[in-house]
Amino acid sequence: MSTDDAHLVERTVASEVRLTGGFLHVVRDTVLLPDGSESTREYVRHPGAVVVVPLLDDGRLVLERQWRHPLQRVLLEFPAGKLEAGEPPQVCGQRELLEETGYSAREWAHAGWLHNACAYSNEGIDVWFARGLTAGPAQLDVGEFVETVLMHPAELDALASRGELTDAKTLVALLWWHRWSCGAWPLQWQPAR
Amino acid sequence: MSTDDAHLVERTVASEVRLTGGFLHVVRDTVLLPDGSESTREYVRHPGAVVVVPLLDDGRLVLERQWRHPLQRVLLEFPAGKLEAGEPPQVCGQRELLEETGYSAREWAHAGWLHNACAYSNEGIDVWFARGLTAGPAQLDVGEFVETVLMHPAELDALASRGELTDAKTLVALLWWHRWSCGAWPLQWQPAR
Repeated sequence: MSTDDAHLVERTVASEVRLTGGFLHVVRDTVLLPDGSESTREYVRHPGAVVVVPLLDDGRLVLERQWRHPLQRVLLEFPAGKLEAGEPPQVCGQRELLEETGYSAREWAHAGWLHNACAYSNEGIDVWFARGLTAGPAQLDVGEFVETVLMHPAELDALASRGELTDAKTLVALLWWHRWSCGAWPLQWQPAR
Repeated sequence: MSTDDAHLVERTVASEVRLTGGFLHVVRDTVLLPDGSESTREYVRHPGAVVVVPLLDDGRLVLERQWRHPLQRVLLEFPAGKLEAGEPPQVCGQRELLEETGYSAREWAHAGWLHNACAYSNEGIDVWFARGLTAGPAQLDVGEFVETVLMHPAELDALASRGELTDAKTLVALLWWHRWSCGAWPLQWQPAR
């Protein structure tokens, strides 16, 4: 935010919990708008998440297929998961990749981040790349049903062009893959932690 | 969903409203997992939305800057808004573009769509392109504070590479812009409605 954004900024004057105790934590804030009038903002509080673009040595990518109940369909997604309290994003990416697909990676690079529902959630998703992959057994939680899929970037790109890849974090990760692979958006690699 | 996804599919056995009457509508469903065990899924019910990539004749794009309270910051976004009941997505795109930026467009093309929070919202966002733009006065609602920004695609791309463009729908729209402008993902244009 620049210092001359006073014509856009809202100021919080009160906050109440609207929903808690289940999966979603929802708050409602009372805010003063730039013109001094009052309004309310209701949104989901989220710990943040990490999505991983795992690059196999043969050029393929590691993805997952998973039932997404709100959409009543299976989505194709890059491996991802929520941050645990105090967990560094790279460690979260390593943990989720291992748990959900069984892969571990020798090198990691932070790409970017995204806000996936800025109107009603404070969720931010960190985008990481992983390479130097070694396969192993997945370590899914009880009640977790996830299928690992290996796919060439051109196949993933074709799915996206036809509207068959709809997960936002996966599409943003595909943007990163395209811009990185053509040399426009460089990555800085570092060892696994 | 293919017919052989039985190992992933969850079946709803009960549903209750958890939050209503404000901005967010939250439900909690009881589901049977693929192994027959029971679990709950809590998520936001959303009418869906449209995001527009407005292409000016001089090559620039029309974007907006807007305070996003959940994130406590101003985000740079393509014009977007929620579907009204029964509203066709193109009409929603035309309405939101006009209301928020004052621009109307002669030609429209449907690009793709995205699910921005598949774990906890049924929101889908339709991505449209618009060209043949004519400027006019914005028609913001009372209590709406939005700033229009004109920007070359290369500037937007540079912001994204530096982590300064974080809105998911805008990043996915940028992916579409890249793939369309290099000829990989064609668009089919049609007149405004």
